[in-house]
Amino acid sequence: MPAFTRPSGRAPDQMREVSLQRRFTRHAEGSVLVSFGDTRVLCTASVEDKVPGFLRGKGVGWVTAEYGMLPRATHTRGEREAARGRQGGRTLEIQRLIGRALRACVDRGLLGERTITLDCDVLQADGGTRTAAITGAYVALVDAVQGLLDAGAIRPPAGRSPVIGAVAAVSVGLYRGVPVLDLDYAEDSDCDTDMNVVMNDGGGFIELQGTAEGHAFRRDELEALLGLAEKGVAELIAHQRAALAGG
Amino acid sequence: MPAFTRPSGRAPDQMREVSLQRRFTRHAEGSVLVSFGDTRVLCTASVEDKVPGFLRGKGVGWVTAEYGMLPRATHTRGEREAARGRQGGRTLEIQRLIGRALRACVDRGLLGERTITLDCDVLQADGGTRTAAITGAYVALVDAVQGLLDAGAIRPPAGRSPVIGAVAAVSVGLYRGVPVLDLDYAEDSDCDTDMNVVMNDGGGFIELQGTAEGHAFRRDELEALLGLAEKGVAELIAHQRAALAGG
Amino acid sequence: MPAFTRPSGRAPDQMREVSLQRRFTRHAEGSVLVSFGDTRVLCTASVEDKVPGFLRGKGVGWVTAEYGMLPRATHTRGEREAARGRQGGRTLEIQRLIGRALRACVDRGLLGERTITLDCDVLQADGGTRTAAITGAYVALVDAVQGLLDAGAIRPPAGRSPVIGAVAAVSVGLYRGVPVLDLDYAEDSDCDTDMNVVMNDGGGFIELQGTAEGHAFRRDELEALLGLAEKGVAELIAHQRAALAGG
Amino acid sequence: MPAFTRPSGRAPDQMREVSLQRRFTRHAEGSVLVSFGDTRVLCTASVEDKVPGFLRGKGVGWVTAEYGMLPRATHTRGEREAARGRQGGRTLEIQRLIGRALRACVDRGLLGERTITLDCDVLQADGGTRTAAITGAYVALVDAVQGLLDAGAIRPPAGRSPVIGAVAAVSVGLYRGVPVLDLDYAEDSDCDTDMNVVMNDGGGFIELQGTAEGHAFRRDELEALLGLAEKGVAELIAHQRAALAGG
Amino acid sequence: MPAFTRPSGRAPDQMREVSLQRRFTRHAEGSVLVSFGDTRVLCTASVEDKVPGFLRGKGVGWVTAEYGMLPRATHTRGEREAARGRQGGRTLEIQRLIGRALRACVDRGLLGERTITLDCDVLQADGGTRTAAITGAYVALVDAVQGLLDAGAIRPPAGRSPVIGAVAAVSVGLYRGVPVLDLDYAEDSDCDTDMNVVMNDGGGFIELQGTAEGHAFRRDELEALLGLAEKGVAELIAHQRAALAGG
Amino acid sequence: MPAFTRPSGRAPDQMREVSLQRRFTRHAEGSVLVSFGDTRVLCTASVEDKVPGFLRGKGVGWVTAEYGMLPRATHTRGEREAARGRQGGRTLEIQRLIGRALRACVDRGLLGERTITLDCDVLQADGGTRTAAITGAYVALVDAVQGLLDAGAIRPPAGRSPVIGAVAAVSVGLYRGVPVLDLDYAEDSDCDTDMNVVMNDGGGFIELQGTAEGHAFRRDELEALLGLAEKGVAELIAHQRAALAGG
Repeated sequence: MPAFTRPSGRAPDQMREVSLQRRFTRHAEGSVLVSFGDTRVLCTASVEDKVPGFLRGKGVGWVTAEYGMLPRATHTRGEREAARGRQGGRTLEIQRLIGRALRACVDRGLLGERTITLDCDVLQADGGTRTAAITGAYVALVDAVQGLLDAGAIRPPAGRSPVIGAVAAVSVGLYRGVPVLDLDYAEDSDCDTDMNVVMNDGGGFIELQGTAEGHAFRRDELEALLGLAEKGVAELIAHQRAALAGG
Repeated sequence: MPAFTRPSGRAPDQMREVSLQRRFTRHAEGSVLVSFGDTRVLCTASVEDKVPGFLRGKGVGWVTAEYGMLPRATHTRGEREAARGRQGGRTLEIQRLIGRALRACVDRGLLGERTITLDCDVLQADGGTRTAAITGAYVALVDAVQGLLDAGAIRPPAGRSPVIGAVAAVSVGLYRGVPVLDLDYAEDSDCDTDMNVVMNDGGGFIELQGTAEGHAFRRDELEALLGLAEKGVAELIAHQRAALAGG
Repeated sequence: MPAFTRPSGRAPDQMREVSLQRRFTRHAEGSVLVSFGDTRVLCTASVEDKVPGFLRGKGVGWVTAEYGMLPRATHTRGEREAARGRQGGRTLEIQRLIGRALRACVDRGLLGERTITLDCDVLQADGGTRTAAITGAYVALVDAVQGLLDAGAIRPPAGRSPVIGAVAAVSVGLYRGVPVLDLDYAEDSDCDTDMNVVMNDGGGFIELQGTAEGHAFRRDELEALLGLAEKGVAELIAHQRAALAGG
Repeated sequence: MPAFTRPSGRAPDQMREVSLQRRFTRHAEGSVLVSFGDTRVLCTASVEDKVPGFLRGKGVGWVTAEYGMLPRATHTRGEREAARGRQGGRTLEIQRLIGRALRACVDRGLLGERTITLDCDVLQADGGTRTAAITGAYVALVDAVQGLLDAGAIRPPAGRSPVIGAVAAVSVGLYRGVPVLDLDYAEDSDCDTDMNVVMNDGGGFIELQGTAEGHAFRRDELEALLGLAEKGVAELIAHQRAALAGG
Repeated sequence: MPAFTRPSGRAPDQMREVSLQRRFTRHAEGSVLVSFGDTRVLCTASVEDKVPGFLRGKGVGWVTAEYGMLPRATHTRGEREAARGRQGGRTLEIQRLIGRALRACVDRGLLGERTITLDCDVLQADGGTRTAAITGAYVALVDAVQGLLDAGAIRPPAGRSPVIGAVAAVSVGLYRGVPVLDLDYAEDSDCDTDMNVVMNDGGGFIELQGTAEGHAFRRDELEALLGLAEKGVAELIAHQRAALAGG
Repeated sequence: MPAFTRPSGRAPDQMREVSLQRRFTRHAEGSVLVSFGDTRVLCTASVEDKVPGFLRGKGVGWVTAEYGMLPRATHTRGEREAARGRQGGRTLEIQRLIGRALRACVDRGLLGERTITLDCDVLQADGGTRTAAITGAYVALVDAVQGLLDAGAIRPPAGRSPVIGAVAAVSVGLYRGVPVLDLDYAEDSDCDTDMNVVMNDGGGFIELQGTAEGHAFRRDELEALLGLAEKGVAELIAHQRAALAGG
C-alpha cells in the first residue's frame, strides 16, 4: 500500500504555517493580517458609537462582520461583488458565520452601546479563508476592545472584560479517505467531506459546519475529524496569545 | 428537582406530527405539502431540459433549490423579498443547504442534461422550516424522477435509478440544558444550541450545522444530539416511504 | 352552425366552482384560501399599528396589497421575483389594483392609524388570479377588522363599521366571439377581449379594465360583458356572505 | 342651483387645445411633441432591426413603449427613477398600456423582424399624460413606418401597410358628479371617477380603464362617460390626420 | 497644403449658435432650454426647503445636479437608465461635475437651509452636452434664486446675493492637430484631445478636464486650447447676461 | 511673514516616499503593492483570453480597470459598496480614469483578443489613491505583458512591444495659496485647488483633471502646478524603471 501523501507534503494532523501580524494598517482600531500558509486575510476591527435599530436604548453592544475577497485573490479573476451589485450567497453565509463566532466571545452588556465591525478581506486565497478570518478577527477585536479600555471608554467591574475567552477556527476534512487538518485549496477542491469548526479556549464548540461533498460520512469519521479540529484550534489559540503578548 | 417540560409537552425525543401530502398542486412534476406540526412547506419539483452554463455539454444533470417564505407565514409580517429587491442571507443560506442535501441523493450522470428545481415555499412557520423543506423536497424529487422514468425520458441501466437512497433532515438542540428532538418555534427562540442534521437512509451524515447560541457545547452534548438526530431521521425516512408507497 | 363550447364545458354565464376557506393559516389576523376552480390564492390580512409616512398623524388608516405567485404555480416554472431582484410590471399592476379595490370598501377614518396589508399569494394559477385575490382578500379583511372590533381596539359609533359594503371581482371576455363569464387559463390565452370588473354589493362599479387582444370590441359587446360581470359578482358576494356566516 | 364650472372654464365636453408637432428632434425615425393643454410629452419612435428573444426567427415584428417623466415635469420635484434604481409601478403600468394600444394598430407580420420602440417622455405634466402619449406616439409610429416604406425596407402587398387604422386615447371622468372630457390636473386630483379610453378610428374600444376614486359609478354614468370619450377620440384622430397631412 | 476644414464649416475659434430660452416649462422655479447648435438640454432648477443630512442644522444651503439623456437623444437609441436599474458611470461623472461647477458660484451661507437641484436632461445630443448643461443651469439657478429674493424668502445684506459671479463651460480639442472651440459630435468622435473647461466671469478656472484620446498633448497645445476656452466662455457669459436681461 | 509649512513638513516640490513592491500576491499575472507614503494600493493585472462584445472579432485587445477601497482603509469606516449594492460615482469616475490612462500606453493591436484587467484596491488611504493606483498599475501591466511575451502567447514584430512608453500620475494643488506636489490627506481636505495629472515618459499629458474647491485658479497658478507635476511624474517613472529592473 502506497504511503498517503497530502499535496503539500504535510502530515495529516499538521497545520500550515500561521502568522498574525498586528497593526497592518493604521486607521482601524484593530488591524491584523492573518496567514494560514498562502491564505492571507486582512481583518480590521472598527468601533462605532451606535448600535443597530433593534438594540437601540438597550444598553448593550453589537459585534458584526463583513467578508470580501479581492477579485484576483483567486487563481482566476472573480467578478467584483460591488460591480455586480450584490453580495453572493457564499459571502453572506461566511460573514454571518464570522459574526456569530465573534459574538460568542463578547459580553455585549459590558461593551456599552457600541458596534464593533470586523471586516475580513481576503488578499490571497488558498483554502480556509473563513477559518483564517475568524482566527485573525479575534485578535483585531481584542486590540479594539483594549483600546476602549485604555481610553477609559469602557470601565468594566474589576477583573472583568467585554472579551470572555478566545475563539479560533479551523477546517478539517476527509481527503482520499484520510482525516486531515487545515485543508488548503488543492485538498479542498478534491475532498469528500469538509468541516469548519469554531471553538473557544475552554474546548467548547461554538459552530460546527460539516458537508459531505462525496460520500456521506460516518459517526466514527466525524469523531476523528473533531479530534483533529481540537488539536488545530489549540495551536491557533496559542498563536493568538503569542501575537497579543507581542505588544 | 422539577420535571423538565417542553413547551409543547412532547418528550425530549419525540417529533411533532409529520405529514407528507403528495400532489398538492397539479402543474409541478412533483408537489408535496410537508408538515412538521404547524410548520407547513410546499415543495415542488420542476423539470427543465437544460442545465446551467458550467454543465452544458457534459451529459450530466443538475439539482437545485429555492426557498421562500410567504410574508405572513410568521407571527409578525415580514417584508416580501421580491419587494425589497433581494433575497436575504438567511434565505440564500437555506436554499444552498437544500440544494446540497438533495444533490447528495441523485446520480446526476443518470439524469441526463436536465435541471430539477426544488421550490420550497413556507406557508406557515413554526420552527424547522429548512428540515421540513429537505424532507418534503425529497418526496417531490422522487415523484418528478418517477415521471421521467414512466415517460421513458430517462432509461437507466437495469436496477439503477437517478435517485440513490433517501435524504431527510431534522433539528436537534439543547433546550434548558436538555437535548431535544425537532425544535418548534418556542424552543428554537429560547435554546442554547441548535443543530440541523441531514442524513441518508444508510445512516450517513450529509450535512451537520450546529450553532451555540448561548454557551458553547461540549463533546458529550454533541454525542447526545447526534443520537437524537439519528432517531428522528429514521422516523422521517419511514414517513417518506409510506407517503411514496401511497400511490 | 356548430354549438359553441367552452373548453371546460361550462355555459357562457357559468362561473367555476368557488370556495372560500377561512383560517387557512393561523398567524394572520385574516387568512383565506380562495379557489375559482383550479386557481387557488392564499389571502392573508395583517394588521400593523402604523401607517405610511404620508398619513402619519392624520388619524386615518391605510389598506394596501401585495401580490405574488409561487414559481411553480403555473404550467412552466417562472423565475422567482425575489431572486431576480424586482417585481415585474404585471405584479405591480395587480397589487395596485387589489389595493384600490379593497380601499373602496373601507372607511379609513374609522380604522384609526393602522395599516391592513392584504398578501395575495397564488399557489396554483388557472386564470383569474387577480379577481380571485380581490374576492378572497375581502373576506380576510373582514375577519381582520372583526378581530379589531372584538378586541375593542376599534370602537366605531353604534351601527357603523370600518367595512362599508362588500367588494368582489370577476373576469369576463369574448371567447370565439361569445361573451363568457370567469375565464380560465385555456380561454384567457385564446380570447379576443378580456375584462376584469370589480363591483360592490350595491351594484356600483369600482374598477373596470378591459383589453382587446384581438379585434377592438364594440359598444354592444361591452354591454353584454358588463351584464355577465354583474351576474358573476352577485354570485361571488353570496359566496362571501356564506363563508363569513360560517363562523 | 349654481352653474357647474370646470376649473379651466371649459365646457364639460370640451377638450383642451391639442397640438402635434412632428420632427421635434432629429435623430429618431419619428419624433412628435404632443400637447394636451399644458401637458407636453415628447414621443419618439426608434426602429431597430431585431426583435425580443420570444419572437426571433418568426418573421414578425414587435412594437413596445417606454414611459418616463422628467423630475420637474410636475408641481413638486419627483425622484429620478434612474437614481432610485427602478421604475415605479405607475410607470410600468403606463408603458405597458401604451405598448398594447400601439400594437393594436400594427400588422406585425408586415413589419418584418423589427422592433419599433416608442419612448414617451413627459416634459410637463398637467393631467392626461398617458392619453397624450398614446395619441402622439401613434403619429411618431406612422412617421417611422413611412420611413421604412420610403426606403424600401418594407414592401407590403399593394394597398396594404403595417399600420392598420389609427389609435388615440382620452380620459373622461365624473367631476363633482358631472361627466367631463379630458381631465386636467386640477380635475384629476379631485374627481370621483377617472377613466382612460383607447379607441381606434373605426369606433372600436381597444382599452378601457376606469377607477372609482370616490363613490362607485353606476351603469348610466358609465354610458355618459363612454359617449364623451367617443367624441374626444374622434377629435383627436382628426388632429392626427391633419398633422400627418402637414408633410 | 489643403485648407483645414471643420465638419461644420466653422472657423477653429467659432462657437456653434447658442440660445438660452427661459421659462421653457412652467412648474420649475427656473427652467431653461439651452442649445449649442443641435445639442439641446432642458435645465430646471427646483428649490426645496431641506438639505442633505450632513448639512442639517448648519444654516447653509446645498446645490446639486442630476443629469439624464432621453433614450433617443442620440443617433442610436440608448438603454433607459431607469429601466436598466442604475445610472452609468458617465452620467454620475457628469452630474458630479455640474454640481461642483454650480456650487462654485453660490454663497451657500446666504441661501439658508435650502437645496437647489439642477436637473439637466438632454433632449437632443450633438456633442458638448455637459458644457451646455452647465451654461444653461446657471441661468436656471439665477432665476430660482431671484424668485427666492422676490418672495422675501432670502434677505441677504444689502448689495449681496447668494449668486456670486457667473459660471459657464465650453469644450475645446485638437481636431486633426488643430485646436478648435466647442466640439460637435462629428469632431468629438474623431479628435485627439478633448478638454472641458469651466470658468467664471472673472476669468478664473473652476474645473479643467482634459483627455488625450489619441496622442498625448504637449504643453504648448494645452496653452492654445486654454486660450480658445477663454474666448468661448466669455461669449457664453455674454449670452447668459443677455438672456437674463431679457426679462 | 511666517514660513510656509506643509503638515508633513515636506518641501512644496517634495513627493512622499514611494515604493513599488512587485509580486505582492501570487495568483495574478502582475501584482504590485504601491505606496505613496501611507497610501497603499494593491494593483493586480489579470489576463483573460476574451474581449468585450464591442471588440469581438476585431483582433485587438482591451485594457480596463476596477477600483475599490477596503471599508476601513480610511479614518472612519465607509460602507462596503458590495453591501450597498452599487459602486458610487467616485469609484466609477476613478476606475474610468485608470482605464483610460493605462490604455494610453498600450498598442492594443499587438495584444491580440485579450483583456487585461487592472484591479486597484486601496488597503490604506492617505490622499492620492488614484495617482498611486495608476502608477502601480503600470508596473503590474508590464509584468503581465512580459509574461505573455515570455510564454510566446504574443509575438510582436522585432523591436516592438504592446507596451508603448510608461505612464504615471501625481496630484498637485494649491495649499494655503502655495503650489505643492503630491497632496496627502491632510492637505487634500484643506486645499483650494486639486489637480490630478497623468503623463507619459515623453512628457506628454494624457489626462488633466483640476478642480477649484475654494477660489477659482488663475492661469499662472495653473502653470506652476503643471511644472510641479512634470517634476513628480519624472520621479515616479524613475521609480517604475528601478522596480522593473529589479527582476
